[in-house]
Amino acid sequence: MAPKWQSALLPQSKKPKSAPSPKLEDKSASPGLPKGEKEQQEANEHIDEVQNEIDRLNEQASEEILKVEQKYNKLRQPFFQKRSELISKIPDFWVTTFVTHPQVSALLGEEDEEALHYLTRVEVIEFEDIKSGYRINFYFDENPYFENKVLSKEFHLNESGDPSSKSTEIKWKSGKDLTKRSSQAQNKASRKRQHEEPESFFTCFTDHSDAGADELGEVIKDDIWPNPLQYYLVPDMDDEEGEAEDDDDDDEEE
Amino acid sequence: MAPKWQSALLPQSKKPKSAPSPKLEDKSASPGLPKGEKEQQEANEHIDEVQNEIDRLNEQASEEILKVEQKYNKLRQPFFQKRSELISKIPDFWVTTFVTHPQVSALLGEEDEEALHYLTRVEVIEFEDIKSGYRINFYFDENPYFENKVLSKEFHLNESGDPSSKSTEIKWKSGKDLTKRSSQAQNKASRKRQHEEPESFFTCFTDHSDAGADELGEVIKDDIWPNPLQYYLVPDMDDEEGEAEDDDDDDEEE
Repeated sequence: MAPKWQSALLPQSKKPKSAPSPKLEDKSASPGLPKGEKEQQEANEHIDEVQNEIDRLNEQASEEILKVEQKYNKLRQPFFQKRSELISKIPDFWVTTFVTHPQVSALLGEEDEEALHYLTRVEVIEFEDIKSGYRINFYFDENPYFENKVLSKEFHLNESGDPSSKSTEIKWKSGKDLTKRSSQAQNKASRKRQHEEPESFFTCFTDHSDAGADELGEVIKDDIWPNPLQYYLVPDMDDEEGEAEDDDDDDEEE
Repeated sequence: MAPKWQSALLPQSKKPKSAPSPKLEDKSASPGLPKGEKEQQEANEHIDEVQNEIDRLNEQASEEILKVEQKYNKLRQPFFQKRSELISKIPDFWVTTFVTHPQVSALLGEEDEEALHYLTRVEVIEFEDIKSGYRINFYFDENPYFENKVLSKEFHLNESGDPSSKSTEIKWKSGKDLTKRSSQAQNKASRKRQHEEPESFFTCFTDHSDAGADELGEVIKDDIWPNPLQYYLVPDMDDEEGEAEDDDDDDEEE
């Protein structure tokens, strides 16, 4: 294939937004030959300007959408608070929800579930500007495993889009560190993935080596938090009409 | 593990939005026992109402965001038009762009590239309501391969989220059907995937068997169309400082 397209591969590096127009060589073998090199040059000069306008509109659109999200985050707050209060009156709500969710349950060892019975409240809080990240708080009753009343994990995304995370240090009670229980039995789902998966739900509070691959936070924020009832209230698996998961379809008509 | 959480797996199927509150059995072994079954019942009854409010707010948010997207689609139109006019003056713009894009180039046979030299204009048009799909128009000069001046492909998403697609029937000239050239040489990238990939870029206009897996449309709409210059103007691959791809970062400061 004749290297026609290599004419655009110029040695100087070009960043589209601020680059001068490339100088195209005149390839007379090219079909659909433009009226002249002059017209081509003009096209090259103007195309950057037009693209800049499009980029500018895209930025404005992103900012407006962000404002809508921030507005609704505020409007939802009192309802999330109220929901959390009601949930705290229902025993085992969160452990039930987690065990029912296919992805989260794969991360749970058996003793994790014991510990999670003491989990009474979960909060997902996006940072004010939304795009830089969010925080998840897990509130626990007094329990045999650790001293902390609250375990938190924060997920950060910097300007360049690099993810990072940080979390509460768990004050394990003696002999109860679930992240060090190499013999902690895994439930069926996670046995299959045992060579990959952390051994405990609580490992996510210690292992920050790959914040980008940490799916637990995203699953809780995007899948469970909007409507945890869809997992808590899942019907009996043996019921033919039942569905294991209701999609969290926010656009469903009520 | 005592099946504490099975108390929520009731035989009746529950859709969270309109279901009556589940009746929880009193499990006295449960830690953090609520003040009484009555309080629990009330919590169950109210939690649906609160969740309904959250769902309503989510729907409103989605509608407002949709309006922003529709507004900016209109605002961007004249600039997309102008950009298309300028691009049509630059020979081989689109074939260069496609060949430079890693995913699209993997779909191109060598003769596809010949045909794509005649591609002068591309348009991506989202449907008015945005969520139901979009259309891509490919405008060609007169060429030895097919009669059509325009090839179009539409991607549809119905209410239930099922994808489907339809496209122009290509009127191939005699002996020039590129989708039937089983011996059409593939470029290096696609040789590796030859057992999977269609043999021609133009196959996407005939094969609608798996609209959900058709990545070409998504790549053009989401990756190339916002700013094709980032691929057209890619620097020389041998340049150490050059990048093969500039991310289309719409939020970049200009």
